[in-house]
Amino acid sequence: MARDDVFKKLVAHCKEYGFVFPSSEIYDGLGAVYDYGPNGVELKNNIKKYWWDSMVLLHENVVGLDSAIFMHPTTWKASGHVDAFNDPLIDNKDSKKRYRADVLIEDLMAKIEAKITKETEKARKKFGDDFDEAKFRATNPRVKANQEKLDEIHNRFVKALNDNDLKELRQIILDYDVVCPVSGSKNWTDVRQFNLMFSTEVGSTAEGASKIYLRPETAQGIFVNFLNVQKTGRMKLPFGIAQIGKAFRNEIVARQFIFRMREFEQMEMQFFVRPGEEMKWFDYWKNMRMKWHKALDMGDEKYRFHDHDKLAHYANAATDVEFEMPFGFKEVEGIHSRTDFDLSQHQQYSGKKMQYFDPELNKSYVPYVIETSIGVDRMFLSILAGAYTEEEVPDKDGKTGETRVVLKLPPVLAPVKLAVLPLVRKDGLPEKALKIVDQFKFDFNCRYEEKDSIGKRYRRQDAIGTPYCITVDHQTLKDDTVTIRYRDTMEQERVKIEQLYDIITKKVSLKELLKTLV
Amino acid sequence: MARDDVFKKLVAHCKEYGFVFPSSEIYDGLGAVYDYGPNGVELKNNIKKYWWDSMVLLHENVVGLDSAIFMHPTTWKASGHVDAFNDPLIDNKDSKKRYRADVLIEDLMAKIEAKITKETEKARKKFGDDFDEAKFRATNPRVKANQEKLDEIHNRFVKALNDNDLKELRQIILDYDVVCPVSGSKNWTDVRQFNLMFSTEVGSTAEGASKIYLRPETAQGIFVNFLNVQKTGRMKLPFGIAQIGKAFRNEIVARQFIFRMREFEQMEMQFFVRPGEEMKWFDYWKNMRMKWHKALDMGDEKYRFHDHDKLAHYANAATDVEFEMPFGFKEVEGIHSRTDFDLSQHQQYSGKKMQYFDPELNKSYVPYVIETSIGVDRMFLSILAGAYTEEEVPDKDGKTGETRVVLKLPPVLAPVKLAVLPLVRKDGLPEKALKIVDQFKFDFNCRYEEKDSIGKRYRRQDAIGTPYCITVDHQTLKDDTVTIRYRDTMEQERVKIEQLYDIITKKVSLKELLKTLV
Repeated sequence: MARDDVFKKLVAHCKEYGFVFPSSEIYDGLGAVYDYGPNGVELKNNIKKYWWDSMVLLHENVVGLDSAIFMHPTTWKASGHVDAFNDPLIDNKDSKKRYRADVLIEDLMAKIEAKITKETEKARKKFGDDFDEAKFRATNPRVKANQEKLDEIHNRFVKALNDNDLKELRQIILDYDVVCPVSGSKNWTDVRQFNLMFSTEVGSTAEGASKIYLRPETAQGIFVNFLNVQKTGRMKLPFGIAQIGKAFRNEIVARQFIFRMREFEQMEMQFFVRPGEEMKWFDYWKNMRMKWHKALDMGDEKYRFHDHDKLAHYANAATDVEFEMPFGFKEVEGIHSRTDFDLSQHQQYSGKKMQYFDPELNKSYVPYVIETSIGVDRMFLSILAGAYTEEEVPDKDGKTGETRVVLKLPPVLAPVKLAVLPLVRKDGLPEKALKIVDQFKFDFNCRYEEKDSIGKRYRRQDAIGTPYCITVDHQTLKDDTVTIRYRDTMEQERVKIEQLYDIITKKVSLKELLKTLV
Repeated sequence: MARDDVFKKLVAHCKEYGFVFPSSEIYDGLGAVYDYGPNGVELKNNIKKYWWDSMVLLHENVVGLDSAIFMHPTTWKASGHVDAFNDPLIDNKDSKKRYRADVLIEDLMAKIEAKITKETEKARKKFGDDFDEAKFRATNPRVKANQEKLDEIHNRFVKALNDNDLKELRQIILDYDVVCPVSGSKNWTDVRQFNLMFSTEVGSTAEGASKIYLRPETAQGIFVNFLNVQKTGRMKLPFGIAQIGKAFRNEIVARQFIFRMREFEQMEMQFFVRPGEEMKWFDYWKNMRMKWHKALDMGDEKYRFHDHDKLAHYANAATDVEFEMPFGFKEVEGIHSRTDFDLSQHQQYSGKKMQYFDPELNKSYVPYVIETSIGVDRMFLSILAGAYTEEEVPDKDGKTGETRVVLKLPPVLAPVKLAVLPLVRKDGLPEKALKIVDQFKFDFNCRYEEKDSIGKRYRRQDAIGTPYCITVDHQTLKDDTVTIRYRDTMEQERVKIEQLYDIITKKVSLKELLKTLV
């Protein structure tokens, strides 16, 4: 199945099964904003809890924080967001449509890249096993020309971004005949910077209200609270502050479902260390964070690091954890060595000493910072993308017939852990089934379903990723046994009700998962 | 201790022990916005989990939702917030200060009320047991005159609010000589309406951005998703949708710490029922919600219902759960019978049928709604206010000496459940203590502390409400026993380490608390 198809199906599945709805859908939606439905919110909460506990419970020296979305506006002056958190925008004068200039150029490069790939694949098919790709690319005139063009654009583009040269960005668009997808014309305006922060007015004194911003990242809430947390918690370096919360960016080109949204949620941890020890801790957190991802058992090959060549002005090392989405390997988490940039900036702008007195070194300094920053929504999407499976299943006679859609979610993250299904809606089976629900409902999220055939009910639970279904039948009334059915293998076995707790807990317990990280 | 003093001490305590910090404090704060520190975020998360599980796990027919803060702007037209979510503001021309006209009048009435009380108490002291308050109030000329004045203002005020008569609000202020506390003058402007919603601009097309709002309540996110949730979850009436999330109100007079903030968090549940059955469910949720509060064992006398005399235009019944704060009984939660107002409005504005087909009645209708709405921050404040205790404790010789500050938090909500304290920092005691932390850290939030005397460490744990401290001493190394110390009684006993899990779990387990609600 083509990757694009998988993605479309995933989006439809998310809506049909109560994971993700377009926001304000009855009013035809709001661009790049989504709501999480009943199953979505459970999955999201489970992801957040896994992250939070792995930070705060697993690490004696990591504590939590919940700072507000609203912050004093000088925060964003100090952090650099007021001056430099911009997208370069360009308008087409004919269609009146607005685009990100950098995205237009990236799309242009992707098109040329696609041409090269197409040409190469055609040749590979033609020559079969004898095909020498390197040689072909070096000699085929069309491919060579395209590659040269691509390199040229790439070099100009990187330079223009580094120099923040808006004229050059426009010139690239003109030089390579980029047209507006709507009007088809090359009638472009200048490129202008557009700040990505949402602003609003707070208060209303007679002297006027003041402009504040919706935070574009949660990290600054940690930095401005560094002293408060360190002092009230009597924290000693190295220590970390973990936070989960909403952030907002006025993305012009918000795409790919919940991958890039205007309102999104971050899980960020800032780890404060002695200057000079940052690389040791950068490596520590790289390993720890990858371990966290892989512990979910979605397949180690789906993850990779992508080290940054070009570093942000505040960083001296940076890497992404990438996950293989239906649209390619994409960043899910960033791990950054942010030096003392942020604390120093806040020290300068606030006039408050953002320093730590190190009793061992007997001196004060501005700590260095390692940041781990993960998007809840991206993590959610990566988990769903990795879990979404269509597979042919044998019918009663052992022939392949039906296709089932199953979310092979990590059991600890599944919205529902156990579905309790009476075989028929009579003979006291529903009552017995509900008793079992009552027995387990505070241990793990249970669902009771009595409508439709058992087969249909199994499919519905597969579609939301419920790892265990049990069926209550007439024999249950006699000997307190049920049939347990395993989501991934679809195997069934007869077990005693009293065994259920152990069977299920072993797989769905967050505690057991956390233990594997120690 | 005076109530005002308690409140001030509580605010200071919240900062000193990492519960609540003023937002962006290094930039001298942001009005009516606060951050939750390491202990605060744990307490807050525990409150949220208690609410969420009591809704979603306890009720087979209540499901969760997490809708976005950003919504389509027509939502707020339909809900009435664009037109009617206003505060009446008035400026003093001399001081340039802005006030809520209704608050000025309320303050005026409070002053007159205080005069009456003072006069009455003076007389009570004078006459002692013979004092007949009713007779005194009816005959004393000063008291009588003040009471008549008060009644007159009250009547005019209520009428002006009902009629939304801004001129009359101003006239009351003029007629009773209300002066600006800053300039002392009566030089007032007209009263104008000021909408409490924060707005921002989203997107940036060449045609211009569109104005959207930060939601002033989470409820509308539930209403606009009614069909999506009902259909994808195959829900049958009656059923509920529960949601926790941030909301924002541009309060002009934001007061009393985290009681009224500009950015706050709500836990709301909308329960959809058959028209005509709403009073039955209103009573059900009244009882259920009060049970939930009282199960925390903070003292039943601290809670009361306050039924609304004057109902909002959308309601046909409403009550508040009030908690006794240091500044009096205050609303913590509202339970409202909202009729079909919201769904009908959205039906009208969206053109989508917001109806439910009832298979038993064989007809479609717009459901009625019972809402339970609780402020996380208010709940947090009420718990802290109820828990904050200063008490004299006996010294070693049994004489009263010291005062200790202890937060008698419900153990299930306490940020830290168990503190593990080595008696001394040598002889392998720290290592042994850390082993115990490792043993329990995934079961409940543990803290390890080795600095300062045991007495000081106990006090620090008292101050953050840790229900259990254990001390690891030399005997521990021999026989695996520790001293467990109970927060509220300060009693200590020697127990086996293997007994700890059962002792602690019994009290801190959310599961056990939830069971008491069944």
